[in-house]
Amino acid sequence: MTADAHPLLSNPRSERVRQVAALGRRAARQRSGTFLVEGPQAVRELLRYAPGRARALYATEVAGERHPELLAAAEQADVPRWTCTPQVLETMADTGSPQGVVAVAETIDVPLSAALGAVGEHDFAVVLTHVRDPGNAGTVLRGASAFGAAAVLVSDASVDVYNPKVVRSTVGALFHLPVSVGAPVEEVLAECRAAGIRLLAADGSGQTALPDADLTGRHAWVMGNEAWGLSPEVLAACDQRVGIPIARAESLNLAMAATVCLHASASSRPS
Amino acid sequence: MTADAHPLLSNPRSERVRQVAALGRRAARQRSGTFLVEGPQAVRELLRYAPGRARALYATEVAGERHPELLAAAEQADVPRWTCTPQVLETMADTGSPQGVVAVAETIDVPLSAALGAVGEHDFAVVLTHVRDPGNAGTVLRGASAFGAAAVLVSDASVDVYNPKVVRSTVGALFHLPVSVGAPVEEVLAECRAAGIRLLAADGSGQTALPDADLTGRHAWVMGNEAWGLSPEVLAACDQRVGIPIARAESLNLAMAATVCLHASASSRPS
Repeated sequence: MTADAHPLLSNPRSERVRQVAALGRRAARQRSGTFLVEGPQAVRELLRYAPGRARALYATEVAGERHPELLAAAEQADVPRWTCTPQVLETMADTGSPQGVVAVAETIDVPLSAALGAVGEHDFAVVLTHVRDPGNAGTVLRGASAFGAAAVLVSDASVDVYNPKVVRSTVGALFHLPVSVGAPVEEVLAECRAAGIRLLAADGSGQTALPDADLTGRHAWVMGNEAWGLSPEVLAACDQRVGIPIARAESLNLAMAATVCLHASASSRPS
Repeated sequence: MTADAHPLLSNPRSERVRQVAALGRRAARQRSGTFLVEGPQAVRELLRYAPGRARALYATEVAGERHPELLAAAEQADVPRWTCTPQVLETMADTGSPQGVVAVAETIDVPLSAALGAVGEHDFAVVLTHVRDPGNAGTVLRGASAFGAAAVLVSDASVDVYNPKVVRSTVGALFHLPVSVGAPVEEVLAECRAAGIRLLAADGSGQTALPDADLTGRHAWVMGNEAWGLSPEVLAACDQRVGIPIARAESLNLAMAATVCLHASASSRPS
């Protein structure tokens, strides 16, 4: 199949291009129920893990030649494809360099109950509350995927997981596991408890040191705000406050702490 | 002491302001042997761990009132201090928001032999080679501090540790432990071996899984490029290639992998 068998988008001011570019804004994402997936790796994961959610693939001619596997995957999943001029692609993208490929996908979050249902007897999950930095949220999602978390539950007070910066920093991990969004943190924690999921607060000043924490059985790590951590109410709702022993105070950021905690849970699973 | 007891810098085009702002460029840093330290936390660590290296402290009046401990520490260490208008401070800073405080410091790296000398019998170190992203280098330095590494050895082909973006993302960790810079990676590895330091290559496809690696005794983690990892030559020079077991391929970035490896070494130390 040649590139010219597909419509060529060359006008950066066309309605279609404007609509894709608008997905950088939350209001446009909510109105359309879609979001932007940028760069070959993230698009590859979309087409592999959630091909039914892909609405459109946009690639420059050069990027299409460089990534024939993406074009083939889009065709197999009946995803409409457009070839774009580099200027059009740049206009659509939120980032400066999506390496010539973006896709538009329907939102992929699942109801809280469905996410909880994915947490099996020996599984662990992640709860995010008041996490505001897109890069941190993305890294936690990436870690959740890498270390085999069963689900990620994002509370309503956290950054939008469909923010292009979050999607970008997950590098496709967003498509790997069930993610719920939008429930108030009190509801998320109550539903976890009702489902028999132990709640571990990731808390620098936690009374339990990570090596002493029981990470067997169904549990969830509760991660809070970058600057001020978890609120007293959330801490009170958790079963245990777990801290990572470190050589110096205040020396881990949220993404690093999450990486260590999720790795510890993965290492504690029965093999 | 009141702010007006100190010279007020109000002209963003003055020679002094230009010289500080120039430290965003490597050439100016190398010529002057100084670098920029931005934000209250990093400046606090500078004044605490390396007060003799601080050349000057610049703060807005508001920031000075908010952080009297920094002014006191500067005074105690005989560090000259200037009060700046917000516009002058913004002109000096590399980042958009240094929260009203920057300092200029003399470079703090030590010779390779001195860094190696700091690695005791039960200690571990970190070697960076071809690490190019400032945020990744900063996070590795931060992790090295948090997990009690004895030294960080940065090879000549890596990002400049005095790049303001690196300094910023270490949040002061740069001042916590001996750091050597500028030696070719072959020399760094050879000197490690000569000092009896076992070399563990952090390598996604490593034959040894992290839980099976011997992390007791003197060792160093060798971390490579974000995109392509470690070169065949570097891998061949290492004693062992260690990988982190993960649920999905290519799912950890350098900063995450380093965090897990350094935490594992910290956890293996005799207490």
